[in-house]
Amino acid sequence: MESLRVALGERSYPIHIGAGIIDSAELYAPYLSGGSAAIVTNEVVSPLYLSKVRAAIVSAGARVSAIVVEDGEQAKSWQTVDKVCDALLEARCGRDSLIVALGGGVVGDLAGFAAAVFQRGVPFLQVPTTLLAQVDSSVGGKTAINHARGKNMIGAFHQPLAVISDVATLDTLPERELRAGLAEVIKHGLALDLPFVEWLEKNIEKLLARERGALVYAVRRCCELKARIVAADEREAGERALLNFGHTFGHAIEGATGYGSWLHGEAISAGMVMAAELSLLTGSIRKDDAARVRALLARAGLPVKGPALSAERLLELMAVDKKAAKGRTRFVLLTAIGRAVLQADVDSRLVRAAIVAAAQ
Amino acid sequence: MESLRVALGERSYPIHIGAGIIDSAELYAPYLSGGSAAIVTNEVVSPLYLSKVRAAIVSAGARVSAIVVEDGEQAKSWQTVDKVCDALLEARCGRDSLIVALGGGVVGDLAGFAAAVFQRGVPFLQVPTTLLAQVDSSVGGKTAINHARGKNMIGAFHQPLAVISDVATLDTLPERELRAGLAEVIKHGLALDLPFVEWLEKNIEKLLARERGALVYAVRRCCELKARIVAADEREAGERALLNFGHTFGHAIEGATGYGSWLHGEAISAGMVMAAELSLLTGSIRKDDAARVRALLARAGLPVKGPALSAERLLELMAVDKKAAKGRTRFVLLTAIGRAVLQADVDSRLVRAAIVAAAQ
Repeated sequence: MESLRVALGERSYPIHIGAGIIDSAELYAPYLSGGSAAIVTNEVVSPLYLSKVRAAIVSAGARVSAIVVEDGEQAKSWQTVDKVCDALLEARCGRDSLIVALGGGVVGDLAGFAAAVFQRGVPFLQVPTTLLAQVDSSVGGKTAINHARGKNMIGAFHQPLAVISDVATLDTLPERELRAGLAEVIKHGLALDLPFVEWLEKNIEKLLARERGALVYAVRRCCELKARIVAADEREAGERALLNFGHTFGHAIEGATGYGSWLHGEAISAGMVMAAELSLLTGSIRKDDAARVRALLARAGLPVKGPALSAERLLELMAVDKKAAKGRTRFVLLTAIGRAVLQADVDSRLVRAAIVAAAQ
Repeated sequence: MESLRVALGERSYPIHIGAGIIDSAELYAPYLSGGSAAIVTNEVVSPLYLSKVRAAIVSAGARVSAIVVEDGEQAKSWQTVDKVCDALLEARCGRDSLIVALGGGVVGDLAGFAAAVFQRGVPFLQVPTTLLAQVDSSVGGKTAINHARGKNMIGAFHQPLAVISDVATLDTLPERELRAGLAEVIKHGLALDLPFVEWLEKNIEKLLARERGALVYAVRRCCELKARIVAADEREAGERALLNFGHTFGHAIEGATGYGSWLHGEAISAGMVMAAELSLLTGSIRKDDAARVRALLARAGLPVKGPALSAERLLELMAVDKKAAKGRTRFVLLTAIGRAVLQADVDSRLVRAAIVAAAQ
């Protein structure tokens, strides 16, 4: 098992990464002083891992209840938060009960937000069981639910007490979700770290084959990169927005197609191609850089073209994206492979042209 | 105008107290660098003060929208939070827009919670227009909505950037609400400050007559007492719970009678009588102390007896109150007039006896 730390003063926490660690009681024990825990998971993950996590918590000496929500993006709703709070009260959970988010990004966002607002905030652990959640959404304290007008419009910054990432759980991950997770892995490289991109170009097949050593390396590298950024900019006042490379376009794709028909990672993959085309059009990267972005994503089996939609519809959705500041949409552009920058004023004609170019 | 400060490091903020300050543009100007603001108020307060606050913000150079919610405790619902978020998105408000909570405790709790969760947190101002909100709920960053199983079960700690308390707005406050606000004023004295209780015993009629000098003094003293406690214990790990004197009983009364039929301050008044009787039964105060609690509340025109309900029903509701920790209900008891303490293990037979005694 490898461990690293997100340095956030009194909100600092460890990330543990390994194979077969999900049922290690000693990883849960430090956070159970309140004597009770509630595991929030979904109907797909619960038959696979709920009993293991439950047994670990029980053997660490706490009473535990389980709250099973529906699978999929629609669980990121207020109705589900209300249901979770209801179950917490039914189980007589209080301010010092521990919430354990067991599942992918949706469960982490939902359970994290419930932990942020239940009784004005209770402690929680992230136990991510998808690649996307292990490399990205479980780290950094962003929690959210969706609003009819946009994804993640309602949420909170609420840091977990620890993240327990067991790459053995990726054995049961559907192929499509593994690839969607690789989109976020590649994002970390493209936005922040050229050597990691080079490593991915050599090892992408090992990741697709779920080789545990390669998975631990990739999860660890992404967490290191993200932890460094989150420590410097917890509430996304600046640098942290670089982690949104591909997301301004990607969220619009998700919104336009209805949350869930494209997986988040798939939308972000097409979004990164659009962002690379935009970087090319603004002259900040060269043609072979943009081609390299496409090639790596294609090798990971990810979409490199957006959905069959007008550029206007995507532009409209981007305008309400939460990254809009003072009425303008900010874009994350590349200045090189491994180096992203924030750009506030981008001519909307270039944005439209980038969407069109990405569709070729 | 008098100003004091809540010392919370980088989350420190000023409280301004005066008569006729609600439309002072210079009090709003420091918080409008984002260029836009949304005033959240209700249908009762908006005809009285919305145009004044709107004019102040406009003359400070920002664009402003208004969101008017229904009056009353039922506005502390998720449906209303969703409506507020919808209006904020409609008005193209973003992460640097300022939310202004204009109204009483319900509007402050609701708008503060919306500010806490909209786009993972946006800045907000408290402009309280009831005595209860000026002396208590606008200070300290507690925000919340209600859940079917209990009051304030869902919320966040989200500090305002400033509190602007104009006692001239109390001129339009219904008599019953003024008295309900006095319950929280008296609570600050009983729990924390004997000299303030003595001042109240001399000046309660001046407050009932809405003499501005007396109101400014009382609001200021309560804010000083509360600011000191909040600075020492922002998230209510300990000392801050003393401010809940009367609230464990009071919340149960509100829950039992349906939120709104008893005003919060009225329930807290009867709750303080019960808490005083409990302090007497546990031997921590004398009979004349309990009588003094009743006498002051009665002079303020407040209820000193609970509703016509069985003690069992109140006990049951107290068991799910959020102050329950590890399955036990904590009580705030008096050891003297002006000195409260936290007590975790109280025999439920004594609690029942205190409820019965308060009904005499």
